[in-house]
Amino acid sequence: MPTLLERRGLMFVLSSPSGAGKTTLSHMLLEAEKGVEMSVSVTTRKPRPGERDHVDYHFIDAAEFQSRAATGALLEWAEVFGNHYGTPRDPVDLALAGGRDVLFDIDWQGTRQLKASRPADLVTVFILPPSAAALRERLLKRAQDSAGVVGERMAKATSEISHWAEYDYIIVNDDLAASLVAIRSILAAERLKRERRIGALSALVKRLDLELTKVTAKP
Amino acid sequence: MPTLLERRGLMFVLSSPSGAGKTTLSHMLLEAEKGVEMSVSVTTRKPRPGERDHVDYHFIDAAEFQSRAATGALLEWAEVFGNHYGTPRDPVDLALAGGRDVLFDIDWQGTRQLKASRPADLVTVFILPPSAAALRERLLKRAQDSAGVVGERMAKATSEISHWAEYDYIIVNDDLAASLVAIRSILAAERLKRERRIGALSALVKRLDLELTKVTAKP
Repeated sequence: MPTLLERRGLMFVLSSPSGAGKTTLSHMLLEAEKGVEMSVSVTTRKPRPGERDHVDYHFIDAAEFQSRAATGALLEWAEVFGNHYGTPRDPVDLALAGGRDVLFDIDWQGTRQLKASRPADLVTVFILPPSAAALRERLLKRAQDSAGVVGERMAKATSEISHWAEYDYIIVNDDLAASLVAIRSILAAERLKRERRIGALSALVKRLDLELTKVTAKP
Repeated sequence: MPTLLERRGLMFVLSSPSGAGKTTLSHMLLEAEKGVEMSVSVTTRKPRPGERDHVDYHFIDAAEFQSRAATGALLEWAEVFGNHYGTPRDPVDLALAGGRDVLFDIDWQGTRQLKASRPADLVTVFILPPSAAALRERLLKRAQDSAGVVGERMAKATSEISHWAEYDYIIVNDDLAASLVAIRSILAAERLKRERRIGALSALVKRLDLELTKVTAKP
């Protein structure tokens, strides 16, 4: 049984243009990693068919959104396609303090705000599509998006992609299984970083020092 | 087939006190990862039974060592237990330029020198034993070390361990298989870092931009 040291949870951001596979990969990651929980955003946009309140999003109205933003209850927020999106602060703080990691499916605007407020806890991953054709194909497969929305999202993709260089890690998603392996490797490595486990490691080293003093003092 | 982008190789350092499993883990990593090659150090110490010249070390005399150090042919060097150890520069530069990773089995002194000269290419991992008893047991299993050498290495362990906080990642090695998985995750994650693939990623994003312009310009 490997020695699992106590650590503070980390904030794991996945960003990409719509259609690059971010949402699918998020669900796969949550399925594979039980120590990770999803940050459920609040949004003022209407639910798409199949979306569940408090699971995919907390659907709230514009007045409620403004109130939460004004009282500091949101860690970050952004406007996309005329709708507002934001991250509730309390569930994130609870998870991190309990050593659980939090997954964020947010765009570059939200990522920038998290980086400004929580740089030490943050790990950011940008997912690129292998080609524009692959991106278009995935958007067209989403039956709920009208042809107009697909065109709008394709046009927006260039703008979103232009922020790739603000991220720590880049994954080119042409194979979902390989991309999931890549994401899990990043998560595993980040959990092993010294800076996330200073307290527990200091305690372990102190114990080793004491033990070594005793052992080497033996005749 | 996942999109493998060209990248510069990285310098992957494994350090630990003698007996924490570093050499065993290095061999396991080389076996598992064909894209990684070992940096073979030069040393003035005498070969232990079973050690092969030019495989485990390049065994050279003190005059040859001084000459190499003086002409800049060594990336780093250090004295340990009265013997000199150093890393030949040319094989490392060749490997990195060819996109291959180089594994270093060196101590904190060598790691400090590499960090000073090559910070961008460097990834450092420190391996801690789970307990002093485990460390002692592994040292005693090494039939070639005399009882006196074991005692000397145990005493030295405290000093080596005191440098743990200079490393990027820390692994507590109480299970070799789990530690190998951890090391491979770190390697996989570091290869996905944006900063190691700026050239190839910039080219990919440029191509995506062009494709997106064409696709969204369609009627």
